[in-house]
Amino acid sequence: MTVRLGTMQDWPMHVMRLVDHAEREHPDGEVVSAWADGTMTRTNWAEIAQKARQMSQALVAAGVKKGDRVATLAMNHERHLIAWYGAIGMGAVLHTINPRLFPEQLVYIANHAEDKVLLYDAMMKPLVDAMKGQWKTIDTYVCFDPPEGWDGDQGFEDWIAPYDGDFHWAEADERDPIGLCYTSGTTGNPKGVIYEHRSMILHALAEIQPDCFNLGKRDCALPIVPMFHANAWGLPWAAPLVGCKMVLSADYTAERMVDLFREEKVTHSAGVPTIWVDMIAHIEKTGADLGPLHTVTIGGSAAPRAMIKWFRDRDIEVGHAWGMTELSPIGSLAGKPNGWDDMSDEEQIEYTARQGRVPFGIEMRIIDDEGNTLPRDGKSSGDLQVRGAWVVDTYFKAEESALTEDGWFSTGDVACLHPDGSMQITDRSKDVIKSGGEWISSIELENAAVGVDGIAEAACIGIFHPKWDERPLLVCVKDGTCDVDGEAVVDGIKDQVAKWWLPDAVEFVDELPHTATGKLSKKTLREQFSDYSFEGVVAMAGRD
Amino acid sequence: MTVRLGTMQDWPMHVMRLVDHAEREHPDGEVVSAWADGTMTRTNWAEIAQKARQMSQALVAAGVKKGDRVATLAMNHERHLIAWYGAIGMGAVLHTINPRLFPEQLVYIANHAEDKVLLYDAMMKPLVDAMKGQWKTIDTYVCFDPPEGWDGDQGFEDWIAPYDGDFHWAEADERDPIGLCYTSGTTGNPKGVIYEHRSMILHALAEIQPDCFNLGKRDCALPIVPMFHANAWGLPWAAPLVGCKMVLSADYTAERMVDLFREEKVTHSAGVPTIWVDMIAHIEKTGADLGPLHTVTIGGSAAPRAMIKWFRDRDIEVGHAWGMTELSPIGSLAGKPNGWDDMSDEEQIEYTARQGRVPFGIEMRIIDDEGNTLPRDGKSSGDLQVRGAWVVDTYFKAEESALTEDGWFSTGDVACLHPDGSMQITDRSKDVIKSGGEWISSIELENAAVGVDGIAEAACIGIFHPKWDERPLLVCVKDGTCDVDGEAVVDGIKDQVAKWWLPDAVEFVDELPHTATGKLSKKTLREQFSDYSFEGVVAMAGRD
Repeated sequence: MTVRLGTMQDWPMHVMRLVDHAEREHPDGEVVSAWADGTMTRTNWAEIAQKARQMSQALVAAGVKKGDRVATLAMNHERHLIAWYGAIGMGAVLHTINPRLFPEQLVYIANHAEDKVLLYDAMMKPLVDAMKGQWKTIDTYVCFDPPEGWDGDQGFEDWIAPYDGDFHWAEADERDPIGLCYTSGTTGNPKGVIYEHRSMILHALAEIQPDCFNLGKRDCALPIVPMFHANAWGLPWAAPLVGCKMVLSADYTAERMVDLFREEKVTHSAGVPTIWVDMIAHIEKTGADLGPLHTVTIGGSAAPRAMIKWFRDRDIEVGHAWGMTELSPIGSLAGKPNGWDDMSDEEQIEYTARQGRVPFGIEMRIIDDEGNTLPRDGKSSGDLQVRGAWVVDTYFKAEESALTEDGWFSTGDVACLHPDGSMQITDRSKDVIKSGGEWISSIELENAAVGVDGIAEAACIGIFHPKWDERPLLVCVKDGTCDVDGEAVVDGIKDQVAKWWLPDAVEFVDELPHTATGKLSKKTLREQFSDYSFEGVVAMAGRD
Repeated sequence: MTVRLGTMQDWPMHVMRLVDHAEREHPDGEVVSAWADGTMTRTNWAEIAQKARQMSQALVAAGVKKGDRVATLAMNHERHLIAWYGAIGMGAVLHTINPRLFPEQLVYIANHAEDKVLLYDAMMKPLVDAMKGQWKTIDTYVCFDPPEGWDGDQGFEDWIAPYDGDFHWAEADERDPIGLCYTSGTTGNPKGVIYEHRSMILHALAEIQPDCFNLGKRDCALPIVPMFHANAWGLPWAAPLVGCKMVLSADYTAERMVDLFREEKVTHSAGVPTIWVDMIAHIEKTGADLGPLHTVTIGGSAAPRAMIKWFRDRDIEVGHAWGMTELSPIGSLAGKPNGWDDMSDEEQIEYTARQGRVPFGIEMRIIDDEGNTLPRDGKSSGDLQVRGAWVVDTYFKAEESALTEDGWFSTGDVACLHPDGSMQITDRSKDVIKSGGEWISSIELENAAVGVDGIAEAACIGIFHPKWDERPLLVCVKDGTCDVDGEAVVDGIKDQVAKWWLPDAVEFVDELPHTATGKLSKKTLREQFSDYSFEGVVAMAGRD
């Protein structure tokens, strides 16, 4: 250790500094809540900070200790936000539970987390009542929004009312845990990702930059992402950092969203593609006005080109993002490159359709089956691995690190890195079709197939092939608008993909299997087609 | 210490990650140099990273060890930038020397820093030759830009050419020192501020945000601030972070700047007010075009309202900043507040004329003579104190911290904090006039006085007064355009300041004293007027 001859100040990164900063510098920064019952409330950072301190006192009084887990089962609203800061402020770890998990997963995660307290929305009461007998560690239940005549658990405001808010945030190391969010894989129990003070501050600083969410004080952000889903993409941390107005809504119907956009003068929003599909359909039907909205972030799954174009046509900037719960969640976002203004419309859309570039703090590489790092040539595809300041190392209570020996996290996505730094997801690792030592993107085949007249939905899976190991089978659902057969599908996609990628067979079904959250379930589809064989099927195209 | 059940990755903040990031993600991000001899060169982050590694090797070969100081005496250009990263990359501390210091200060700081190596511009040769005998610790001299026929020290490119760049940046703790910059007070020897890896990364992350410099990859930044002056306001760290183009110029003549703005498509620039005064005069005279320039940061001293208005009239955003060498240097910057679009022109200018708001990472308070914290009411003025992630704690080799007992750094400025979070500098602590227990701003009186017809320049100092302790004396220089006397001056300013602020006397001189860097020297003025007394002077206005 060098003898320190002159120093900068010690200034640990601590998320409670965010609320302190907002209370001091942006006390009147507004937080608007649109509640499930249709009512609206307004508060600001001065009140949020005060109530968070009161809640910290209530937790101390309830016997919660530093490092204990405090859970929430709630949609987006101001009390949920207060609960985040109130829990972390006294040293607890905030566990945001996703109510969309299966019941057995809900039992598992609350017990695995050893949650001590649960704060929940009144609408979750049936779920909570059904679970109480199985949750072993929760001894304090609080309802965020008890309606008139409620005879259940204590209400949030009553719970914190006895306390005066004369409370100093608990001391903490910047590497101490602040949050816990479980992510459900397709196999095994959900895994818990631990967020830390430091990682969340660095994530927030990265997120607000012009090439990411581009957030400043004069903006108004409405996350259409639940606070239980990877921190609502970090916006509840970013808003107090810059002092912008924030609108939180308990439901995401297109009608309500559009009303909020206009009435609250929302400038920035963020959500998954299906949210925007609904909203665009609603606007196309009603001619509704989006108000001053000028920036949307789309992530969770790939934003279709038509969606990107729709927003561009209305002078709304699209930031296409990629992330994971394990990445807090932002991994990359499509900020504009050099020379943007000189690019053609088509080039700009092509660029935006990729999943963006890494902000400083994240690194990416792609590797092949042998673990070799592949070039950033815009052609090679490989398993996407990441490392950085807000990337998981070890899951909650896991016995060993989730990283490779050389310190990278395998995302389970397959991607291509372009020379300009942009990243393009080409598939999920488990869905990629490995044919003759090379990889075929199931996603690209599906995207091409749904562009064919008469096709409503498509899924592509690899089927065993004696020579090539795997060859693609395309399974389609017709939309009934016209007659279409396998040859017509292959004909419709043949100019969009390499010839050797073309499926060996096309099958039609009435319905494709989906998961509880509405995603295509290739796992179930593969089970359904486990006995399928190309034997007897006349190869339609493809390699041989 | 809590047992860590689940973690994020370790990711120390290290400024060499900036150049690694730029080399990997923005390899073709351009750095353009406009040299002192009028020539231009172009390079990019891939080449800068490579040459920085070569320079690290050259330093190792020269016997430089981790923690040793490597000095530069140079204007802004690509080799100076390479030298920053090359020095820090092998573990040295970069000492940027300000050539405008007095000779005895130049001797003092190089010896005090114990510099081992000096890299300098050819134009500095007379200075270097004059100093060599007095600089006791420098044993390696390198000239950045030896001209044809140079017979002095080795040239930079020749010096690094023998090395292949196969070098791994030195391991470093994120609190290790990376930079040293001396700041000269009005008394005593210059004091050295030590910058650290961590403080500089956090400063860069804060600086690029929309409410500060608002920098993204598609921008082009031209700092009109020397790299030896508080890190050119941090832009050489911020540019690789976002991958924007950067233009470095060795001189700042208005003509050259305007040519660069236009030819290199500069979007962002930053400089002190006098730079912009010259540029505006040049543009007004020649009708020169500023190209796509859309954001300027003005700091160093207060931006006049007329200057702010001039840029606004041309759709150029003005970010008014305040900072110090001790703050790396950004302390506050005028990003737009909520409701900006609803503010009148006059309100927007009034807001921009203040010195902005703190970014997350900096805290401010104002205190009175007794150390009481004053309210943020937009009226109270007090000594401005700061603390935060990139604020000095202990000066280089100082025996004790520069901070107050409770951990704040006294800036030497007097300021007012407004309820909306904005900060307004009202004076320097040593220049404020203390009258009857209250404070009179010398700066406001001077600004008002130069608005009076016939007044070219004005300086206000406090003169002993038996009843009020001090009362203001206004010393003016006429511009010869019209006849003006003391009464006319007082009459001209009486509607702009409180009645009890009005000077007790106005004196006229042919010339006001200035420092070597062109600033008004109130210290000399106070010496000149040390025998001055209000006795016998008929009080013109003021308190009695």
